[in-house]
Amino acid sequence: MSETNRRITLASRPEGEPTAANFGLDEQPIPEPGDGQILCRTIYLSLDPYMRGRMSDAKSYADPVNVGDPMCGGTVCQVVKSNHEKFRGGDIVLAYTGWQDYAVTNVEGVMKLNPEQAPISTALGILGMPGMTAYTGLMNIGKPKDGETVVVAAASGPVGGLVGQIAKIKGCRAVGIAGGPDKCAHVVDNLGFDACLDHRGDDLAGALAEACPDGIDVYFENVGGAVADAVYPRLNPFARVPVCGLIAQYNATDLPPGPNKLPLLMRDVLTKRLAIRGFIVTDFLDQWPQAAGEIAGWLREGRVKYLEDVVQGLENAPAAFMGLLQGKNFGKLVVQVGHDPTG
Amino acid sequence: MSETNRRITLASRPEGEPTAANFGLDEQPIPEPGDGQILCRTIYLSLDPYMRGRMSDAKSYADPVNVGDPMCGGTVCQVVKSNHEKFRGGDIVLAYTGWQDYAVTNVEGVMKLNPEQAPISTALGILGMPGMTAYTGLMNIGKPKDGETVVVAAASGPVGGLVGQIAKIKGCRAVGIAGGPDKCAHVVDNLGFDACLDHRGDDLAGALAEACPDGIDVYFENVGGAVADAVYPRLNPFARVPVCGLIAQYNATDLPPGPNKLPLLMRDVLTKRLAIRGFIVTDFLDQWPQAAGEIAGWLREGRVKYLEDVVQGLENAPAAFMGLLQGKNFGKLVVQVGHDPTG
Repeated sequence: MSETNRRITLASRPEGEPTAANFGLDEQPIPEPGDGQILCRTIYLSLDPYMRGRMSDAKSYADPVNVGDPMCGGTVCQVVKSNHEKFRGGDIVLAYTGWQDYAVTNVEGVMKLNPEQAPISTALGILGMPGMTAYTGLMNIGKPKDGETVVVAAASGPVGGLVGQIAKIKGCRAVGIAGGPDKCAHVVDNLGFDACLDHRGDDLAGALAEACPDGIDVYFENVGGAVADAVYPRLNPFARVPVCGLIAQYNATDLPPGPNKLPLLMRDVLTKRLAIRGFIVTDFLDQWPQAAGEIAGWLREGRVKYLEDVVQGLENAPAAFMGLLQGKNFGKLVVQVGHDPTG
Repeated sequence: MSETNRRITLASRPEGEPTAANFGLDEQPIPEPGDGQILCRTIYLSLDPYMRGRMSDAKSYADPVNVGDPMCGGTVCQVVKSNHEKFRGGDIVLAYTGWQDYAVTNVEGVMKLNPEQAPISTALGILGMPGMTAYTGLMNIGKPKDGETVVVAAASGPVGGLVGQIAKIKGCRAVGIAGGPDKCAHVVDNLGFDACLDHRGDDLAGALAEACPDGIDVYFENVGGAVADAVYPRLNPFARVPVCGLIAQYNATDLPPGPNKLPLLMRDVLTKRLAIRGFIVTDFLDQWPQAAGEIAGWLREGRVKYLEDVVQGLENAPAAFMGLLQGKNFGKLVVQVGHDPTG
């Protein structure tokens, strides 16, 4: 057990793509929990694309991280010391304590995990925020119907991978888009998608036309950019587009050059009667217990699978995060920060 | 009664803004109805922005008008001769017989009107397609809630004018956008909107900020272009955008120059969780009787008002239509083609 608390902080706000210089590493004394608080030791830290937004001070649905503060993030922790009756030392919990070895936190939103039910890291992935994002967005906004075609990008990632697997369970054709032949093979061979297209190929539009002979009824949008440009013309009348991420444009500092394609999109919205709706996972908070129960059931039955990309060591979190924004991870990216007593 | 049937035809497809050369005028013998058909004499012809789409052969929700055929359009007619038991000579009907003095039609979709209930031209306006567009789009997609702010452009037109009046009935703040001080005065003084902004002013964005101190919860989109650009930044989280028209871009032959503003819109969709959904009036066909009944009730009670812009003479339809696309009409544009026996 480390004697100090290493923290990865936001050293400065990135202009465009984050660089190592935007992150700091400092050491602090391990903090003491006050009344009603707990001291947590981080085991796993989740790295997710939304964190790029928190590094900027642009107005968004959540406040930015302050410069000098530890980067925010979901964690699986072990309780070291508890001043709250609900928790005991040794408990494994899901918390939101960020990029650091230790943290003191109030217990609101902290959830005890049962290591017998599922590997504890899944609370950051398929049974956590990414899983809830996939489930609630697809079911509430995508509304997939038997026989329809569902397309999702970042299909080897934790959200996209589950979106396609739920689509299959609902009787849809599931077509993924991913970066490179290895990811595409995984998406088809292990996750059971009907097809997966490499967005690095020369002709994504042509590949989409071939893979979606009946058009596209649901496009689960988590990337934007060139992938979206290829998908929109293939959308069917009354198609639904849940928008949960736009990773392709998070690092952009300027708008892309012309022409202005906005009128093209709006024309499609009108003539095809598209429904485009943004959401974040907490918009459907009341559905989480039901969703988590259903996904856990599918997991036990072997009907859904997941893949984790585990990076060792807190100090490697910045590089891993920068790689995530470039699509270098393969599966749900987590950083193992400390010893996993359940592993 | 004319001895021939004058028809305004699509002479050629417009490139950009339609010109007089895109329309033809010919004369044909008055046709004879076959078994089960009726011969109709046009009294009023409706002119509506969607007709611009039918002049092009781009794929849309409806087939284009063929070059050489009469322009399509909704009409209020008198039955001259009936070979169908449901109709008799003299009946006043709502039909879809297009830009001509006479037409033979099957009776499917033809509806008998009761001139005692409302002026017959309203079947083309507040009690017809524009009224149903305003009602069904606002209620199903806009979902205005008490205390919210609803913004609509073309607010002196038949769709926008009713959108704002329904918004007021539902307890919302209604803010219109229209072209010029006369239209804006009408929208506030006669239709009862809380405010109406002139889109020809220098600072629409600033005027919107002032007129919508609590942001915008529903933007009923019927114009697109610069108005939409000014509205989007003022949308509140969870705002709804029913899209029923984009008149500002119908005549465009090329996409506007850069930058490409699509990523900006998608960022708003994501961070504000906007819901943007296109519709056309027939998507909610099953709701028309209920909607028409409710609007007729409001009309009787004086809670909603309408304004018509009546142009005399079929031969003036092309010029009136070209003016419509430039916002020159003031109220619901109809052409009086023939004598109104109820007037």
